Amino acid sequence: MKQVGIIGASGYTGAELARLLLNHDRVELCVATSRKYAGQKMSDIYPSLRGRTDLVCENPSGQELLDRAELFFTAVPHKTAMDIVPPLLEAGKLVIDLSADYRLRDLDVYEKWYQPHSSPQYLQEAVYGLPELYREKIKKTRLVANTGCFPVTAILGLAPLAEQGLIDLQSLIIDSKTGTSGAGRSANVATLFCEVHDGFRPYKVGGTHRHTPEIEQELSALGGTKATVSFTPHLLPVNRGILSTIYTTPTRPEMTIEDYYTLYEERYRDEPFIRLCPPGSLPSLQHIGGSNFCDIALVKDERTGRLIVISAIDNIGKGASGQAVQNMNLMLGFDETEGLMNIPCFP
Amino acid sequence: MKQVGIIGASGYTGAELARLLLNHDRVELCVATSRKYAGQKMSDIYPSLRGRTDLVCENPSGQELLDRAELFFTAVPHKTAMDIVPPLLEAGKLVIDLSADYRLRDLDVYEKWYQPHSSPQYLQEAVYGLPELYREKIKKTRLVANTGCFPVTAILGLAPLAEQGLIDLQSLIIDSKTGTSGAGRSANVATLFCEVHDGFRPYKVGGTHRHTPEIEQELSALGGTKATVSFTPHLLPVNRGILSTIYTTPTRPEMTIEDYYTLYEERYRDEPFIRLCPPGSLPSLQHIGGSNFCDIALVKDERTGRLIVISAIDNIGKGASGQAVQNMNLMLGFDETEGLMNIPCFP
Amino acid sequence: MKQVGIIGASGYTGAELARLLLNHDRVELCVATSRKYAGQKMSDIYPSLRGRTDLVCENPSGQELLDRAELFFTAVPHKTAMDIVPPLLEAGKLVIDLSADYRLRDLDVYEKWYQPHSSPQYLQEAVYGLPELYREKIKKTRLVANTGCFPVTAILGLAPLAEQGLIDLQSLIIDSKTGTSGAGRSANVATLFCEVHDGFRPYKVGGTHRHTPEIEQELSALGGTKATVSFTPHLLPVNRGILSTIYTTPTRPEMTIEDYYTLYEERYRDEPFIRLCPPGSLPSLQHIGGSNFCDIALVKDERTGRLIVISAIDNIGKGASGQAVQNMNLMLGFDETEGLMNIPCFP
Amino acid sequence: MKQVGIIGASGYTGAELARLLLNHDRVELCVATSRKYAGQKMSDIYPSLRGRTDLVCENPSGQELLDRAELFFTAVPHKTAMDIVPPLLEAGKLVIDLSADYRLRDLDVYEKWYQPHSSPQYLQEAVYGLPELYREKIKKTRLVANTGCFPVTAILGLAPLAEQGLIDLQSLIIDSKTGTSGAGRSANVATLFCEVHDGFRPYKVGGTHRHTPEIEQELSALGGTKATVSFTPHLLPVNRGILSTIYTTPTRPEMTIEDYYTLYEERYRDEPFIRLCPPGSLPSLQHIGGSNFCDIALVKDERTGRLIVISAIDNIGKGASGQAVQNMNLMLGFDETEGLMNIPCFP
Repeated sequence: MKQVGIIGASGYTGAELARLLLNHDRVELCVATSRKYAGQKMSDIYPSLRGRTDLVCENPSGQELLDRAELFFTAVPHKTAMDIVPPLLEAGKLVIDLSADYRLRDLDVYEKWYQPHSSPQYLQEAVYGLPELYREKIKKTRLVANTGCFPVTAILGLAPLAEQGLIDLQSLIIDSKTGTSGAGRSANVATLFCEVHDGFRPYKVGGTHRHTPEIEQELSALGGTKATVSFTPHLLPVNRGILSTIYTTPTRPEMTIEDYYTLYEERYRDEPFIRLCPPGSLPSLQHIGGSNFCDIALVKDERTGRLIVISAIDNIGKGASGQAVQNMNLMLGFDETEGLMNIPCFP
Repeated sequence: MKQVGIIGASGYTGAELARLLLNHDRVELCVATSRKYAGQKMSDIYPSLRGRTDLVCENPSGQELLDRAELFFTAVPHKTAMDIVPPLLEAGKLVIDLSADYRLRDLDVYEKWYQPHSSPQYLQEAVYGLPELYREKIKKTRLVANTGCFPVTAILGLAPLAEQGLIDLQSLIIDSKTGTSGAGRSANVATLFCEVHDGFRPYKVGGTHRHTPEIEQELSALGGTKATVSFTPHLLPVNRGILSTIYTTPTRPEMTIEDYYTLYEERYRDEPFIRLCPPGSLPSLQHIGGSNFCDIALVKDERTGRLIVISAIDNIGKGASGQAVQNMNLMLGFDETEGLMNIPCFP
Repeated sequence: MKQVGIIGASGYTGAELARLLLNHDRVELCVATSRKYAGQKMSDIYPSLRGRTDLVCENPSGQELLDRAELFFTAVPHKTAMDIVPPLLEAGKLVIDLSADYRLRDLDVYEKWYQPHSSPQYLQEAVYGLPELYREKIKKTRLVANTGCFPVTAILGLAPLAEQGLIDLQSLIIDSKTGTSGAGRSANVATLFCEVHDGFRPYKVGGTHRHTPEIEQELSALGGTKATVSFTPHLLPVNRGILSTIYTTPTRPEMTIEDYYTLYEERYRDEPFIRLCPPGSLPSLQHIGGSNFCDIALVKDERTGRLIVISAIDNIGKGASGQAVQNMNLMLGFDETEGLMNIPCFP
Repeated sequence: MKQVGIIGASGYTGAELARLLLNHDRVELCVATSRKYAGQKMSDIYPSLRGRTDLVCENPSGQELLDRAELFFTAVPHKTAMDIVPPLLEAGKLVIDLSADYRLRDLDVYEKWYQPHSSPQYLQEAVYGLPELYREKIKKTRLVANTGCFPVTAILGLAPLAEQGLIDLQSLIIDSKTGTSGAGRSANVATLFCEVHDGFRPYKVGGTHRHTPEIEQELSALGGTKATVSFTPHLLPVNRGILSTIYTTPTRPEMTIEDYYTLYEERYRDEPFIRLCPPGSLPSLQHIGGSNFCDIALVKDERTGRLIVISAIDNIGKGASGQAVQNMNLMLGFDETEGLMNIPCFP
């Protein structure tokens, strides 16, 4: 049993990490920190955990914390993470950072979209946490930058096309819809039940959402040419899930939908968490909640020539905590699927 | 008091028509037909109507029906409408048809997307039921083809741009999300509560939804050049509302967001049901439910040069029954807003 | 046109008051106060109001406020109301207080359940705001104590029985379920979307909810003997609505369900907002949202001898703002139903 | 690996059985039958299962079916089950029947509430499937009558009190609220999304729901005296979960809430799936979805003397398929918790 810890355990991604780690046979969740809830049982903060753990949230100081685990998940906001991660690395710990602080490899880009960075020396070392792209690097790194939730749908949805140069990376439109858990557990009028229920709305329209440069970084790397995307997030009245509808312009219009499906099947054949929908069927959020799966479908619009990609994940599963556990499995040398093969609850 | 009737009153658009007509000061709802529910009170089929009407659903034969009203709403499926409408017109009645049967002016297009038409002689006479485009014609016609729900968001969202030639009509992407009431009241596994709740999914992806030619017909007419759109509908776990996110390529990239807002303000200044969101704010479905409003916002994506239009309506309000009552007001010479200025319930 | 004002307009009951008053033909909403949102348009705080009002929230001082209207709704928390109401009355204004501060006629009871009262001199003068019980008094008073939301369902559900001594008032069980709008618009983790959606929970179980003494006060007055109730509220994942399931022990077991229905029909024959469900049918929250109706059904459990009463309202309609407008209509000499006969939106 | 089969796999309880059995380390799901979906993959009927099974629904005839497994779950409607179960037993198979057909030990009671029984010879042999009451018998039987969903909450909620004679079994009131999955996957207007969403309603009020005699049978057995209950189910706009609020009259009023908690702690100390809420906290449906837990809380109403019990389960977990797997574990000699300790997803 490996000992692991969660720094910032009281938010929704922290709770989901706890859920997954408590169901994991090869790790022991030894410490969960929270400044706000220090002294309270995790199972009082999240009664869903009752009966499965007596873990109490703590707020230990440096060395005391370091002694408790060999791998840490940092589930704190960006800007906070950049100060917390370096001492963990310096103490020889493995770190999976769920914030945005180490996702962008270009410091200028980071500082343009976020704020000054206090530990930029780790930007090059950090491995972007998508095993489907960086599996071997993740196995060897000490710092994984767990990815943003929206980028998972965009990058996994487009990787086979981008890698082969089969789409124009300059005209991509990514229309994404997310559940409300992505907004976190902070008290906020905008995410009160009555403000979200029976509603639906876009936000940060027009290329202003911070996941934009992250998507562009990875698509550019895959395609070998600068990608520029129109990315529009929307808020859904559900707890979990992101579904992205992605509009692409193929570079080889003669390719048929069967050709594209063949491409995806080959590319993702060995990926345990990617499920291609049978041609003619489409992803639905209700079929992935609570899991680490990414469902993908392709449709060719014969009238306009566009290839439309639909991809869907659980935003705090494959989009955050599930992905983090997948990365942990790789870093600790476990089977990559350990603790993650649970089937989504439906209905 | 003018006497009006609903043919096909037991579906959701029929019920919404009843709700609106019972609240209308200048008409009397004299007959409501339903084959399935003949003999039952409307208020037993829809207990929301209890206390406001004792109307009983009937299934009267031809002349008996004709004698009951001077204006009829036909709220029946397409293909059924094309047989029901002609005798009403021949008897001198006014008709507002909520089906798709008279929306497409080109018979070939209709028969390609639907099936053979039994009364094509009315296609040219029917007026497309968007008062914001065809107000004067609606006032004079005896047959209004009430529009599809999705097209309302697309056409009202783009009309000022299309009219002025300010966008490329060949590369439009319309990503739409609708509430479940649009699927109607038929017993169907796919729209059971458990199949929709906590879910979200696209359907008829790739230019296969029948509202596509309708959108293209009207945008082509507005722009004076053939429009081709990528239209993707999605199903939301809410009862009411459509929100469309529309991606356009401006033809005059030097125009600022202020220029576009000025254009919309001028175009829609006298439109009682179009509400422009103040710059910086965006439509939300929870703020239009139950009303006849269409909320519109504009955002320029400075990185990609695209102009993004967001438009939202209540799909069975402005997208169906509210629009139909607005058309009735015009046809009967009433104030256009009569019975339609109710404020959406929020929360 | 009478001039009216809302003190505390930015909460959900304030917004609902604004919605109803803007749809009302005989009053003008002249002032809306809010400390937090002073200077902001009501339609920016509640975009649902957009297109119907340009009213700006203010925070005027005493005389300035008094000059603006002749009737005020005080939609502020209890304890705040008891300080705000007296100067309004002293200036000759009519007041409808939506807080709990003047509902309990017995000062000791009030101070036991709430806190010390700063203006107890008005407790006897205030009229409990249920027109179905106190219509004539409401017409003549200057201070209406608008009732709690839960008590409306309990009192209207039981009044015909209590008045005739037909149930044991000592063994009543009132199991109530409310939508989340009752919790107000304060930022609060417990009412975030993710904490309420897909959930259901009781709260303040065991006779600790403050609506308990209010229910008992009115049932005791109706029955002429002290009532004691077990009242349990639960939180539903819907915005609007309260449904109460009330278990009673009849004192005259020989009475049939038909007898009870006859009693209710006679008692409520002239009540415009009470809708008795036809025997065999039952209230449903989806059929009353946004309205001022109270739906009631009766069922006799032949096995246990109990008579079960089901009653349902919109908690911020008949349970708060709709009721307040009904009271206003009585106080100002209007038709009692003015502005309140809108039909619930369904679906 | 033991081989098991599901008869009637296409309904919601069938799908949940499949989910649980596919996650179970010691059984292999070898056959899933469905008349309606024969020939279709389970993962096409339930895309949530995609990537985890290639099982195809079949409709095999007698011997062919019998050869496929040694234990069968019969997830078919009552009346159908009574004909299907006997041949399975006669062939030496173990059977867990999820219908109501073998739950009532008294044939007269069964036939009064349901219809004539075709295999009453098994009524005495069948063991009522609540391990918390009948663990040792379940281990030895060949036929388990899996319990109704509502009775689980009532019986587990009251067992410690009933066993000790601490409540009056004649005056119990059980007010229950269930998610919509309990209504099954049949196409039905009453359970369409738009008919349930934003709604809440009671049904089968007044002692007419068929779970009533089942609750009474077990409480009578526990208490040694005839129990009579007022049971009222309500339909919640959630997929999963039942929460019951149970009103009891204590026979020993001097007992304190601490006494009752001590009683429950002792009674349920070794029960892996019963979670007592810490005094002062209460069950919430959002904290048990997808699990086999039963959460219980107790509150004493000092004003009325009543003891109120709140209990909550997942209706298709502990209330159906989870319970069935728990029974299977006992029948096959596995650890009782095998495959069932997953933590509920929250949020």
